[in-house]
Amino acid sequence: MDELQRTRRPGGRSARIGAAVHQAVTDLVGERGYGGFTVSEVAARAGVADTTVYRRWGSLEALLTDVTLTRLTARSPMPDTGSLVGDLRTYAAQVAREITGPDGLAVLRLAVLLSGSGPEGLRLRDGFLAERARQLQSMLDRARERGESPPDALAVVDHVMAPMYIRVLFGAEPLTPEYVEGLVDRLLG
Amino acid sequence: MDELQRTRRPGGRSARIGAAVHQAVTDLVGERGYGGFTVSEVAARAGVADTTVYRRWGSLEALLTDVTLTRLTARSPMPDTGSLVGDLRTYAAQVAREITGPDGLAVLRLAVLLSGSGPEGLRLRDGFLAERARQLQSMLDRARERGESPPDALAVVDHVMAPMYIRVLFGAEPLTPEYVEGLVDRLLG
Repeated sequence: MDELQRTRRPGGRSARIGAAVHQAVTDLVGERGYGGFTVSEVAARAGVADTTVYRRWGSLEALLTDVTLTRLTARSPMPDTGSLVGDLRTYAAQVAREITGPDGLAVLRLAVLLSGSGPEGLRLRDGFLAERARQLQSMLDRARERGESPPDALAVVDHVMAPMYIRVLFGAEPLTPEYVEGLVDRLLG
Repeated sequence: MDELQRTRRPGGRSARIGAAVHQAVTDLVGERGYGGFTVSEVAARAGVADTTVYRRWGSLEALLTDVTLTRLTARSPMPDTGSLVGDLRTYAAQVAREITGPDGLAVLRLAVLLSGSGPEGLRLRDGFLAERARQLQSMLDRARERGESPPDALAVVDHVMAPMYIRVLFGAEPLTPEYVEGLVDRLLG
């Protein structure tokens, strides 16, 4: 039986359902906050049966996880501009645009929720963080190969990403282009 | 009528109710996440009537706000050690202890929730942020008066507080004493 695992065929219907369910989750998070809706409400909004959601994602937690990671991954391709300062400024500006965009705060809040969820959520999150760290590391490795002196990846997270995330999560101060560029220049300077 | 506003008499019963309701909120946030409970459930847990909660706080949002700000304020007295590096290291270590403590994550999440709530929540949050900025500023002003060259308050928030908050909110890496001290030393170096 183990060798006869079902595989999901790629195809239009599955992809359409995935997109409709993801959009329903993002909309509901924006309207009610996370924790403010059920699997049934997601299914109704997406126009699918509850059982379709449970069969594919298993639980609301796993669904929220999938939505968060998909959005965070899809929206931040790592730039390759030819210089470290160019790469980091471009990357930081991308992240700033995402998290201040129409549902950026909802996605950030999903990420916070995910980190407080059960083992499945944590496993997915660790996989995501490892993948992002790998991408960031390859940007820094390219800089080193060009003869530049890049900071380590954790320093980028701590001193460029974290200040932007906290400003948006706490709604404290706007993310102006000058501010975002200043974070990068301070890290490199 | 405007001149005959009721004032709440200070006293044991009011304080006891306040403490019981605050603890009930913190416990429920820890158990269910924010958004996962109602005013009635808070009241039942605290052993008071729903109307008592509504009369005093008006709404769940205002109650969550009050709990968050009270805890954030009570737990972070600003140190005065005689040197900037001592003050900032002590302050950063205090904050690290709080947010990694038994209900530190719950309080941080309340702060995130609060920032996404209505005008009353935002007004209270702005008042709190202004008060914290004032306290931090007086620590930095003392350093300047001693002839030191302190960073500005926003830089402390961005490069010492934000990295710690994000690590805890995303559950990414532990806050070791070496890490926390490193954030301060990097800011001052």
